[in-house]
Amino acid sequence: MTRNYNFSAGPSALPVDVLKQAQEELLDWHGLGLSIMEMSHRSREFVSVAEEAEQDLRDLMQIPDNYKVLFMQGGASSQFSMIPMNLLRGKKTADYINTGDWSKKAIKEASRYCDVNVIATSEENNFTSAPRQEELKLSPDAAYLHYTPNETIRGVEFDYIPETGDVPLVADLSSNILSRPIDVSRFGMIYAGAQKNIGPAGLTVVIVREDLLGDTLPGTPSLYDYKMTADAGSMVNTPPTYGWYLAGLVFKWLKAQGGVEAISEINRRKAEKLYAAIDENPFYSNPVAHNVRSWMNVPFILDNADLDKQFLVEAEALGLLNLPGHRSVGGMRASIYNAVPEAGVDALIAFMQDFSQRHG
Amino acid sequence: MTRNYNFSAGPSALPVDVLKQAQEELLDWHGLGLSIMEMSHRSREFVSVAEEAEQDLRDLMQIPDNYKVLFMQGGASSQFSMIPMNLLRGKKTADYINTGDWSKKAIKEASRYCDVNVIATSEENNFTSAPRQEELKLSPDAAYLHYTPNETIRGVEFDYIPETGDVPLVADLSSNILSRPIDVSRFGMIYAGAQKNIGPAGLTVVIVREDLLGDTLPGTPSLYDYKMTADAGSMVNTPPTYGWYLAGLVFKWLKAQGGVEAISEINRRKAEKLYAAIDENPFYSNPVAHNVRSWMNVPFILDNADLDKQFLVEAEALGLLNLPGHRSVGGMRASIYNAVPEAGVDALIAFMQDFSQRHG
Repeated sequence: MTRNYNFSAGPSALPVDVLKQAQEELLDWHGLGLSIMEMSHRSREFVSVAEEAEQDLRDLMQIPDNYKVLFMQGGASSQFSMIPMNLLRGKKTADYINTGDWSKKAIKEASRYCDVNVIATSEENNFTSAPRQEELKLSPDAAYLHYTPNETIRGVEFDYIPETGDVPLVADLSSNILSRPIDVSRFGMIYAGAQKNIGPAGLTVVIVREDLLGDTLPGTPSLYDYKMTADAGSMVNTPPTYGWYLAGLVFKWLKAQGGVEAISEINRRKAEKLYAAIDENPFYSNPVAHNVRSWMNVPFILDNADLDKQFLVEAEALGLLNLPGHRSVGGMRASIYNAVPEAGVDALIAFMQDFSQRHG
Repeated sequence: MTRNYNFSAGPSALPVDVLKQAQEELLDWHGLGLSIMEMSHRSREFVSVAEEAEQDLRDLMQIPDNYKVLFMQGGASSQFSMIPMNLLRGKKTADYINTGDWSKKAIKEASRYCDVNVIATSEENNFTSAPRQEELKLSPDAAYLHYTPNETIRGVEFDYIPETGDVPLVADLSSNILSRPIDVSRFGMIYAGAQKNIGPAGLTVVIVREDLLGDTLPGTPSLYDYKMTADAGSMVNTPPTYGWYLAGLVFKWLKAQGGVEAISEINRRKAEKLYAAIDENPFYSNPVAHNVRSWMNVPFILDNADLDKQFLVEAEALGLLNLPGHRSVGGMRASIYNAVPEAGVDALIAFMQDFSQRHG
C-alpha cells in the first residue's frame, strides 16, 4: 500500500489512523458480524456511536450547553438556504460580509429569501484582505450577520471574531473548524461541511444556540428545520450513518493528538513554515495580507506560470498530490488541514526549494 | 472476522464482495496513495467513478435517454418536499395513494405545498392490501400521482404500476429499486434512498423525465432543484462521494450477478419460501393479502407474543440479526434485500421451524 501526501481542498486528507481503524472494522464492527454502515440508525449500537461523536465534538470545542449540535446532510451549500429559512425569525433583512467565492454563494442564495445587506467586502483588493471590525456597519434591523471565517479558495482567514452586539453571528467554518480554538459562545450559529476537518463529504455539522430555534419561513422543508432536527437528535430521517461514524473516529483521533489547542500549534507551525518558504523565495508568491493568511489553505503562484504544469507533474511524481489552485484562480494551493502531517508540509517545502533552484 | 445474516430494514446488508473491495482499497484507491473519499469530487478519477455508476444504473434499469439520473443527498424524506417543489409546475393539487407509513409521511410533507388529494387508501384494512387500478379516481387537475410501490414497514408491494394517462407517475422505490425489472418509461419520476438496495445512507437516487425539469416553486432551495442538479451532473456542491462510489460497486456487483432479471428470480425464491414457512406453520402469521406481499420486507408475528423476546435472543445467538418488527407494529420483520443471500433466508426458515417445534 502507498500513502501519498494529499493537499486536496476538499474532500481532503483524513488521518491515516482513522482510515486504518475504519478499514479494520469495515466488515465486522466490534465483533457484531456486520458493518456499522449496515446497521439501523436507531440501533442501540449506532445511537451510542452517534452520541459519543457529539459528546467528543462538544468536548473538543467546549460547546456550551445552550447550543444544539446537529448532524445534517447536504453540505455547507444547503446551509446557505437553511440559514435565512431558520434565522430570519420574522425579520426581512440579513447582513453579510463578502470576502470571496464562498461568501458570494451564501449571499446569492440568501438573497432569494430576504434583503441582503453586504455590509463589508474585500472585493476591491481582489479578496486579499478582510474587513476590520470598525468597517462593519451593522444594519439595525438585521436578523443576523453571516461571514466566512476562512475562504478556502483564496486562503483568507479572519484574525478576529466580529463583534455584533445582540445580532446573532453566523459563521461558515467548513474549512477551519477544529483547526484552532474558538469561543463558540460568540456565535449564534456555526456550520461546517465535514469534508475538510471532520470526515467524508455528505455530512454537515451545525452548532446553533437554542434560543434561535423554532420559527422558520413558510415552506421550509422539514429536513431543513433546525428545531425539528434538534428535537429528533438529528434523526428526523436516516442520517448519513457512515459519515457520522467516521466523524466520530476523527474526533477521537483529535482528542488523542491533545485536542484543538495541541493541533493548532502544529497547524501554526505548518502554515508559518510554508508561508516563509513562499515569501523568502522570489520564485513563489502569495498575495494575501499577512494578518489574514489562512492556516488551512495556502494558495501560491509561480513567478513563471509556464512552469505550472511541470511543477505539478514533478510534485505528483514525489507523492505530493492535488496541488493545483482552484479553477477560478489558477496557480497552486496547498490545503493543509489537520490530517495533513507536518512531514507532508516539509516534503512540499523541500520540493518547492529544489524546483525553484532548478528552474529559477 | 464474523459475518452474520443481517435482516435490517435500512440501513441494511451490503454485498460482502462490495465491502471486501471497499476494505481493500480504503487507504489506497487504484494505487494513487489516497482514499477515494479523500479525493476532490471534481477530480478526473472521481468523475469517472461517478459517471460509471450512473451508466451502470442506466444499464441495469434500462433507463431511457430522456430521463436524468441524479445522485442527491437527504434521503427519501427530503424528496417528500422536493417532489411538490419541482413537480407542481404551476398546478395547485397533487394526487397521492396512501398504503402505509411512508405514504403518509409523503402526504404530510406535500400538504405543506399544495392541496393533496388522497385518491385511494388501504387504511380501512390496516394497510394489508393495495388499491386496485379501477379504484384510482385521478383528479383531472393533479400535477402528478405519488405512490409507494413497496411499504417497508408493513411489507406491502404493489403488483401493478398505476395507469395515469398524461399525469406523471411518481414512485418512492426506496425499498424495492433494483429488486425486479420495472419499466421506467411508465414513470415521470422515481426516487430511492440508497440504504436498502443501493449503498450506504446519505445518498438518494432520482430518475426524472427531462420534460418535467425546470419550474420550481418560489423559495425552493437551490440544492432541492432537480434542473440545477441535473445541469451540474449532481455536483452543484460536493456530493456524498463515498456513498456514490459504494453505490457504483453495488451496481457492478449486481451486473456480475446477472443483472436485475437474475436477482429478481432469486428474490422471488427467497420471498416465496419465507412466506410459505409462515403460512404453513400456525405458529407464525402475516396478514398481508397474498397478491401484494413484499419481496423485500416480510413482517410476521408469533402466535404467542410472549415469546417474541426469546425468539430474538435465540435468532441473534445463531447470527440472524435485526429481526424485530418496526417499533410502530411490533412482531418480527425480515428484510431480505438483494444483498441478503438465499442461504440467510434458508437459515432463518430453519430456525423458525426449530423454534416453533420447541415452543409451539
